[in-house]
Amino acid sequence: MKTAIHSATAFAPATVGNAGVGFDLLGHAMVSVGDRVTVRRIEERTVVVHSESLVVPSDPATNTAGAGLLRLLDDFDLPFGFEVTLEKGIPLGSGMGGSAASAAGAILAASRLLPEPLDQTQLLRYGMYGEAVATGSFHPDNLAPCLLGGLVLALDLDPLEVVRIPVPDSLYCVVVHPRLRLDTRDARRVLPQDVALSDHVAQSGRLAGVIAGCFSGDLELIGRCLQDLIVEPKRAPLVTGFEAVKGAALGAGALGCSLSGSGPSLFAWCEGRARGEVIREGMIAAFSEAGVESRGWVSPVAAPGAVIEREE
Amino acid sequence: MKTAIHSATAFAPATVGNAGVGFDLLGHAMVSVGDRVTVRRIEERTVVVHSESLVVPSDPATNTAGAGLLRLLDDFDLPFGFEVTLEKGIPLGSGMGGSAASAAGAILAASRLLPEPLDQTQLLRYGMYGEAVATGSFHPDNLAPCLLGGLVLALDLDPLEVVRIPVPDSLYCVVVHPRLRLDTRDARRVLPQDVALSDHVAQSGRLAGVIAGCFSGDLELIGRCLQDLIVEPKRAPLVTGFEAVKGAALGAGALGCSLSGSGPSLFAWCEGRARGEVIREGMIAAFSEAGVESRGWVSPVAAPGAVIEREE
Repeated sequence: MKTAIHSATAFAPATVGNAGVGFDLLGHAMVSVGDRVTVRRIEERTVVVHSESLVVPSDPATNTAGAGLLRLLDDFDLPFGFEVTLEKGIPLGSGMGGSAASAAGAILAASRLLPEPLDQTQLLRYGMYGEAVATGSFHPDNLAPCLLGGLVLALDLDPLEVVRIPVPDSLYCVVVHPRLRLDTRDARRVLPQDVALSDHVAQSGRLAGVIAGCFSGDLELIGRCLQDLIVEPKRAPLVTGFEAVKGAALGAGALGCSLSGSGPSLFAWCEGRARGEVIREGMIAAFSEAGVESRGWVSPVAAPGAVIEREE
Repeated sequence: MKTAIHSATAFAPATVGNAGVGFDLLGHAMVSVGDRVTVRRIEERTVVVHSESLVVPSDPATNTAGAGLLRLLDDFDLPFGFEVTLEKGIPLGSGMGGSAASAAGAILAASRLLPEPLDQTQLLRYGMYGEAVATGSFHPDNLAPCLLGGLVLALDLDPLEVVRIPVPDSLYCVVVHPRLRLDTRDARRVLPQDVALSDHVAQSGRLAGVIAGCFSGDLELIGRCLQDLIVEPKRAPLVTGFEAVKGAALGAGALGCSLSGSGPSLFAWCEGRARGEVIREGMIAAFSEAGVESRGWVSPVAAPGAVIEREE
């Protein structure tokens, strides 16, 4: 007989949602920055969430890590509850997929405490409850790459369709997070309701070009297509120094540069880690000149997804 | 010394523009249906266009086969002119890329009469002059696959970016042309000016899914994504019997079915030629029940592009 697992700890990576060309559709994981979520089995049939670094809503239903677990409790009629401890490694409100990481880490860890672990489709479904609590919407462009790793196209078909997009090993991503807080809901508020048909064509062509470039390993094609014509123009003004930082990234050889998720972080794609380090320094320097403190990370785009680090 | 070529004949295939998911972006060639264009060198520095099957505008500048050649005459300061004979194999106003085929065939054949044949970029550029005359717009989603063959993503970047998308050998296309005439300009008039942001996301995700499915050979993914949420709803009412014919295609196992180009022809993608024949019969029968005569073709999506058949 299998010994029951009483506690599991998951590491769930930061993610770059939208990835410039695929608003609400495309995203990828990052290495070395993420949230750590420990879930312990408790006797009471409830969900309790603790965090060292943030004030957690007392109602777990309104917490990104708690909402999915509450739903799990109900759907599986579990005879126990969950105590969740969040260690936030992803800056709050950074546009680096922090709510998705907490949700993904919690559901992945909790899944280990079930008689049978959840499959990928279930992990995505329950993770989305948490993500929806945080962002007020139901887009899996952070959650899916957080769980699966790498670059993921997440289609809101019914059911959710998650497509892994292979990327060249040499494709790297720089993310720079300025110390500016931007609420995801505010960033949604500035979105256009409608898009000109010509912009729709131009933008979806660029998304298709990036997908084709990833499959065929054509970094030049990726570079020519990695542009956001629709959302970036609306959101960039919310980020002090945006144009200068983007200019610094492109000047240092980035294939493209735009907002990570809803911002204020920026991401840039490039060829190779060494180039990424140069771009990172350039972006941080440009933020600094604009009077904004920032820090940055460099990661392969083909970064691993959430993993279980420990279980007892 | 090379003997000068005085006459060349090109066969330029019909094409399925838009291909359902990629309005103004995606298209593919068809086998066995196309235009045949013969270009002869003449002494007078002018362009003359003849056709057996249609009334050709007397001014070659307003003719799809003539406009590109006139431009060529000027740009290359040629000491001779072109006499063009068009044999239209593609029904007029069918949405099967007839104007692109005439333009592509003319420029490909004329290119053989030059001291140095044009390269692919030049063929596309001069072909576009003809295509623009016919459609009043400058979208290469028919011309590019007509020249290159197969499935092509044509991006209106500056310069034009043409990306060949590999497709599974088993991917076939059925095109059925009803005897209903629909002017390309009329079909453009019903287009929406704007698209809801949510529709933009949903549609561009489907395009990305089809591109990914083509690269990875995932016909199921292609089938789940091959839908036009934006343009088809506006144009379908212009085509008598559309819903019944689409229903017949899907009922017979098509992966998806929508308008070919601006219609009135419909196309359906499917797995294998045999399935394609069944779908073709079903679509023709459905048109017939709606009181519309039609005919159809079945072709691999990976069909060859325009070729020189003869030169003297």
